[in-house]
Amino acid sequence: MASKAKVGVLGASGYTGSELVRMLLRHPRVEIALLTAERSAGKAMREVFPQFSPFPLPTLVALDGLDWVGANLDLIFCALPHATTQKVIKTIFAATPNAKVVDLSADFRLADTAAYAKWYGHEHLAPDLQKQAVYGLAEIHRREIKKAHLVANPGCYTTCAQLPLTPLIKAKAIELDEIVIDAKSGMTGAGRAAKEAMLFSEVSEGFNAYGVGHHRHMAELDQEFSLAAGREVTVTFTPHLVPMNRGILSTIYVRGRRGKTPEELHAILLDFYAKEPFVHVLPFGETPHTRHVRGSNMTFIGVAKDRIPGRAIVVAALDNLVKGASGQAIQNMNLMMGWPETAGIDQVALFP
Amino acid sequence: MASKAKVGVLGASGYTGSELVRMLLRHPRVEIALLTAERSAGKAMREVFPQFSPFPLPTLVALDGLDWVGANLDLIFCALPHATTQKVIKTIFAATPNAKVVDLSADFRLADTAAYAKWYGHEHLAPDLQKQAVYGLAEIHRREIKKAHLVANPGCYTTCAQLPLTPLIKAKAIELDEIVIDAKSGMTGAGRAAKEAMLFSEVSEGFNAYGVGHHRHMAELDQEFSLAAGREVTVTFTPHLVPMNRGILSTIYVRGRRGKTPEELHAILLDFYAKEPFVHVLPFGETPHTRHVRGSNMTFIGVAKDRIPGRAIVVAALDNLVKGASGQAIQNMNLMMGWPETAGIDQVALFP
Amino acid sequence: MASKAKVGVLGASGYTGSELVRMLLRHPRVEIALLTAERSAGKAMREVFPQFSPFPLPTLVALDGLDWVGANLDLIFCALPHATTQKVIKTIFAATPNAKVVDLSADFRLADTAAYAKWYGHEHLAPDLQKQAVYGLAEIHRREIKKAHLVANPGCYTTCAQLPLTPLIKAKAIELDEIVIDAKSGMTGAGRAAKEAMLFSEVSEGFNAYGVGHHRHMAELDQEFSLAAGREVTVTFTPHLVPMNRGILSTIYVRGRRGKTPEELHAILLDFYAKEPFVHVLPFGETPHTRHVRGSNMTFIGVAKDRIPGRAIVVAALDNLVKGASGQAIQNMNLMMGWPETAGIDQVALFP
Amino acid sequence: MASKAKVGVLGASGYTGSELVRMLLRHPRVEIALLTAERSAGKAMREVFPQFSPFPLPTLVALDGLDWVGANLDLIFCALPHATTQKVIKTIFAATPNAKVVDLSADFRLADTAAYAKWYGHEHLAPDLQKQAVYGLAEIHRREIKKAHLVANPGCYTTCAQLPLTPLIKAKAIELDEIVIDAKSGMTGAGRAAKEAMLFSEVSEGFNAYGVGHHRHMAELDQEFSLAAGREVTVTFTPHLVPMNRGILSTIYVRGRRGKTPEELHAILLDFYAKEPFVHVLPFGETPHTRHVRGSNMTFIGVAKDRIPGRAIVVAALDNLVKGASGQAIQNMNLMMGWPETAGIDQVALFP
Repeated sequence: MASKAKVGVLGASGYTGSELVRMLLRHPRVEIALLTAERSAGKAMREVFPQFSPFPLPTLVALDGLDWVGANLDLIFCALPHATTQKVIKTIFAATPNAKVVDLSADFRLADTAAYAKWYGHEHLAPDLQKQAVYGLAEIHRREIKKAHLVANPGCYTTCAQLPLTPLIKAKAIELDEIVIDAKSGMTGAGRAAKEAMLFSEVSEGFNAYGVGHHRHMAELDQEFSLAAGREVTVTFTPHLVPMNRGILSTIYVRGRRGKTPEELHAILLDFYAKEPFVHVLPFGETPHTRHVRGSNMTFIGVAKDRIPGRAIVVAALDNLVKGASGQAIQNMNLMMGWPETAGIDQVALFP
Repeated sequence: MASKAKVGVLGASGYTGSELVRMLLRHPRVEIALLTAERSAGKAMREVFPQFSPFPLPTLVALDGLDWVGANLDLIFCALPHATTQKVIKTIFAATPNAKVVDLSADFRLADTAAYAKWYGHEHLAPDLQKQAVYGLAEIHRREIKKAHLVANPGCYTTCAQLPLTPLIKAKAIELDEIVIDAKSGMTGAGRAAKEAMLFSEVSEGFNAYGVGHHRHMAELDQEFSLAAGREVTVTFTPHLVPMNRGILSTIYVRGRRGKTPEELHAILLDFYAKEPFVHVLPFGETPHTRHVRGSNMTFIGVAKDRIPGRAIVVAALDNLVKGASGQAIQNMNLMMGWPETAGIDQVALFP
Repeated sequence: MASKAKVGVLGASGYTGSELVRMLLRHPRVEIALLTAERSAGKAMREVFPQFSPFPLPTLVALDGLDWVGANLDLIFCALPHATTQKVIKTIFAATPNAKVVDLSADFRLADTAAYAKWYGHEHLAPDLQKQAVYGLAEIHRREIKKAHLVANPGCYTTCAQLPLTPLIKAKAIELDEIVIDAKSGMTGAGRAAKEAMLFSEVSEGFNAYGVGHHRHMAELDQEFSLAAGREVTVTFTPHLVPMNRGILSTIYVRGRRGKTPEELHAILLDFYAKEPFVHVLPFGETPHTRHVRGSNMTFIGVAKDRIPGRAIVVAALDNLVKGASGQAIQNMNLMMGWPETAGIDQVALFP
Repeated sequence: MASKAKVGVLGASGYTGSELVRMLLRHPRVEIALLTAERSAGKAMREVFPQFSPFPLPTLVALDGLDWVGANLDLIFCALPHATTQKVIKTIFAATPNAKVVDLSADFRLADTAAYAKWYGHEHLAPDLQKQAVYGLAEIHRREIKKAHLVANPGCYTTCAQLPLTPLIKAKAIELDEIVIDAKSGMTGAGRAAKEAMLFSEVSEGFNAYGVGHHRHMAELDQEFSLAAGREVTVTFTPHLVPMNRGILSTIYVRGRRGKTPEELHAILLDFYAKEPFVHVLPFGETPHTRHVRGSNMTFIGVAKDRIPGRAIVVAALDNLVKGASGQAIQNMNLMMGWPETAGIDQVALFP
């Protein structure tokens, strides 16, 4: 086997960072050469994530003053907070133009920098780079990803809405003005920052909606659905928090267009994903559980008939930290590097 | 104070049974005179529910051969499995015509016995009694409940859909053909029967929809919403299971009729429930958590604006074992007996 | 009924604060006249604890500059962080010498101010007040509590160790040098401060010991066990964290002294607690679950025989926020005010 | 690479069965050739464990009437209920004497068939086979396992007690008559049989001890500790149930012998496991969490000093379904087949 590629993980002390490390440690083509963290700089990775105690890993370092040329990385995963990212990636490309970057933040997902400014409340800090960024949902944009050197990894909620809906929109099979997405996420989606609302005692044994009517993920959905439809599409989307660590489930209400039945919608999805290693369409009428994709890069999709004629209920489930973040990021790396697409991310789901 | 009323709980070894006992033990007007259970007949209540160890309670007895005349009960809560109930209540009324009954099963909820036969797959076994049964959602049918001697306690899912929707439907404020109810329930809603799918290890750390497109609760919703609308109403309804013990949250998608805004829908609910002790409407834009009503008889309702003009998102939360079952049943008893409506069910929610 | 006593809760935005409010709202002798919180000063209680939305409550105010004379409180619950407390209570007594105080912090639990300095790393700030403080475990020190005006409410871990052990130590029934207490607590014991280690995603689906060999609660155990024994007693104590909100369970390993059998130890506990409303000793061989005391002021105790002759395993369970904190505090208030001991704290446990 | 070995999993519809399949699907040397289940015979594996939907697997078949000769398996994992196992394995060896068997039940763990009869209440059904069985804790009995054709896989609780204690007992470093093991397990340890006590609503948000004083696992501990000590050893052992799916944590109280300090006990363990791939000893004073070994074959061990001189607290954590069952079983297969010991079981822990 050829020598291993040197990869770095920026923001290794968060959950998407640790999830990258978990999978990269077993990736056959990769050497973990750099791990960064700001508040934990100087610590061993085992101090912030004890599960890595048995494994040799680089000490965490701060971003500031990093010698990018000396580091000589082939690919960098950027799992930094929103906004920081745009500046950091500019620096990286300035120093090492041949490096490839997979960015897990929202910073490069919106092609339209005006839309970015509207939803995020400030000007985009790297509009030139934005032009080169490719939106990294492999099942939809695989061809572009293979040629990209900067990939914007999709959000977890939006992945769990796009995978079931985009093929139906592309096939002009559903009404575009009546789509309702009721989404439910595990708590790791909220990240590792210490907030009162995310404490165990606040979350356990309860359930709630949040951001009702105005969630930032909507911008990303608008962009991708409009692209797929060839016209502007606006959907209703409500996120909820489930007292569990991992998993997103989207329950999606649609109406078939021009008499398309739920069975026909199912057939479209089955056909679209027939050869995909990471999307599995269940038999008609069955719907997925988040627990059946936990820890894996799989998305399960089910379609059922509503009792109101012409309407269908589409349900999708994925692990927000894997297919919804770090697994998708490695899938993007594999495509960008020309490696087998499933390398390092073929773990079978952990249930129970 | 007058002497206490003698009440019985049939089916005391299930969760709605224990929940009745929990509240009745502190009800100022009640003496628990009879507890039945089939498989656990002969056992002390503390053997099936150790939390009652410190309290004196009647030994569990079987239904078969019970001397109803001798028992001389003023009111009976019937928390028996579906279908058994119809026969048992016929027997009770035959023996003690003056007893009052609150039935927590689905057996007497559908006024139309043909609808019952369709959804439950067999003929109704007590059609004459059905005519006397009153549907026991206090905030909607209080006047009839006060005069009833047989009250059919509503289902938990349907209570959490009716309380937010019925006032809007009565006010002709929303489009009737586009209502989507995405409901999420804690696990006690599934009862105490030992089933593989309800094991801790199957449920914990996961989330799923079930009965997609064809849940029995729909019959009850059809009946009550059609009654409120004065025409037939069919809604889309999807139930989900949350890894928590208690709580139901309904996320409801509606469109205002004739230009009714989300703010106007909120005002209708605020007005409708202004004097209700057990329904609380949050300020506009806020939505409830199940954890904030846990263990209490409260329902919290919130209304928010969707970003699609004319559409609103209504969210309701209650404790499925209290307002969704046993608390509502005691509220019905209080109304039937002419007692203060809040007696014995004024506990403040337990959070965290 | 006489007019209600005016009580205040200092530190109402934490879990012991909200738990006090939950029970005081239904206490027949009490009016909640003052609620304080520092960071949340100026907010309505419903903003920090939405479960209180339906109830009228005073707005949260800051401690600084409070007019204690004008407030004219009969009794004050102090649920403030460690050390702040000593200063605040000095201020209160200076302004209103007739007020009574129940302190839920650790600040006045250690009679020996030198022991305090050793375990807490700084001098005691109110040594004179310390002399007047009574250690508030009602079942052990009821007589002194009735006469006290400053009661130091015990810690949750130590309550769950003292209730099962103190009667055995007093009866000289167990060896004092071989006591091992393996304690497990729900997460509310860690409070509401936002810390990474307490996030849902860090805690859920896992279990761990902490503070192994050196936990501050040991000072309180040393004091009380030595007092009961009439000689110095040092025990082995290990706390653990359970992924649940409420509850402490202590598994305690003891050896009978002078041939005392496990059955005899059980008889001693049964006798000691025969008339106590809040301590229930299970039949020999049965051991308690935390879920069976959830939300109640009960402690359940069980005794079983070890297979090693002469050794017994004693298990105790209580709700850390009720008998382990706020319920005990109200029990102390009831004693100090001469009211029925169970007033306002007779809720039956919430299970499931 | 050589052709793959054909393996079978008997009892594939239980949790240890599914866990074997999860890891065997990614094992480089193995083909899953047979899956059995009794009640689910005739079903696809995806019907009993939907997480396997994307993977081709044999249909579940019943044991009765199986053609063992035709199946021609190289190795069989037996994950059947207690007692059934002894008969089934006799049948297998009669038909295919060259097959190897790893048995995950308790049926062949006790070398002394009289001890078996005492603890399990009936005579051993295959005493001749018992003589050939090797107790399969790889770190202790690796040499014998390599030569065995029938390996009795250890219990999960006992693995989590033996790995931390056996090296200390062998080194004569601790007092043998004062060992206290306080063990806590996740719910998958109770298996997948539908029992009321294992329902989500019974288990969630609570904690309890069970089998206090008389748990069957003690027989296995007695055997292995006595073997290690060269004399009879009886320990105190109490199991508890934690509301989580996976993980066992043992908190073990020991006293050093002849002045051995906690630091010296730590050094013994560090040395004993220096080269082991699946046992990791943490730095002195640190203790493990179950969450840090979840889904992996690792055991983490920590040693801390008790405040009572001469006493130490040893804490061990493992995943009961992996190192406590199916991972250990594959480790045994790897040893029996002469393959790399870590093949197929080198997954990194899944946290959070």
